[in-house]
Amino acid sequence: MAGDAFDRDGLTVSLDEIARRAGLGPGTLHRHFPSKAALIDATVAARVRDLAAAVQARVAAVADPTDALVDALTVVVDQGAASHALADRLRDGSGGIDAAVAEPVAELRTALATLLRRAQQAGGVRPELDPADIDALLTAAHALKTHPTGSDLLVRLLWSALLTDAGRRHRSALAP
Amino acid sequence: MAGDAFDRDGLTVSLDEIARRAGLGPGTLHRHFPSKAALIDATVAARVRDLAAAVQARVAAVADPTDALVDALTVVVDQGAASHALADRLRDGSGGIDAAVAEPVAELRTALATLLRRAQQAGGVRPELDPADIDALLTAAHALKTHPTGSDLLVRLLWSALLTDAGRRHRSALAP
Repeated sequence: MAGDAFDRDGLTVSLDEIARRAGLGPGTLHRHFPSKAALIDATVAARVRDLAAAVQARVAAVADPTDALVDALTVVVDQGAASHALADRLRDGSGGIDAAVAEPVAELRTALATLLRRAQQAGGVRPELDPADIDALLTAAHALKTHPTGSDLLVRLLWSALLTDAGRRHRSALAP
Repeated sequence: MAGDAFDRDGLTVSLDEIARRAGLGPGTLHRHFPSKAALIDATVAARVRDLAAAVQARVAAVADPTDALVDALTVVVDQGAASHALADRLRDGSGGIDAAVAEPVAELRTALATLLRRAQQAGGVRPELDPADIDALLTAAHALKTHPTGSDLLVRLLWSALLTDAGRRHRSALAP
């Protein structure tokens, strides 16, 4: 609800305006969220928890670990492109994040690291990649998707660069 | 000279301080550059001209067009990482750039587009890439190099993603 307002009107939309659209008295919203920053962090935390759950679901459900990793990275980048607040918070890295956001971000990182390790063990993803590389790769993928000359094709090219020759052959039907 | 001061101390260094380090009276510098913005743009323009010349030299000198393109992209990213002012100006895209910078940036783009076309004609680079994609790719490569968890390995992976299978085999001795 607040997330929709932030997505549509940017982070400058006021707490009072969000309350008005939700049909709440301003006092009700202010009681729960003393500042707009607190509301943004709560909104972002909910989204990151959804993302972490979506990634964790892929750890269990998708048969091929390399497909699971690429799907999960794609979901994270798509969500980040749809939500400026989410993208900014994920880009913050470990610094300056509210505790409400830091915990689901850590869960998301752990889930992605698990997928990376599984895909590497299956031989589909380059062994020299480290879980810490994922942050930089997500930032680059966000740039490839949201740059004025960016496109989903360029994002897919970046993911294909993570694959071994075997992983690339396996995904050749999906790759650009 | 001014470029060194900007690199070392950031863009907040004053015109007077730049003049002092250069052994010039403040009046001399102010006569040529009425504002710091003008000096920054002149400094960046000189660097982009050097970059464009370096890229154009590769059009002529490097035997393999795919090697020439990857080398040129690497040079541009390395220079951008070393110069915040340069990176910011290149990221600006076509909007809000001083004419003094816009012309060498256009030269640089043209030189990179020429290298891309040659590498595609030689079969080393994916035919679906467009010269307009280069801006987004350079922005992503800058993120991969300068992110806290970034590295030259990740930048090389991105360049390898631009190659065809033939181009990848050709460069396998250089690739990570």
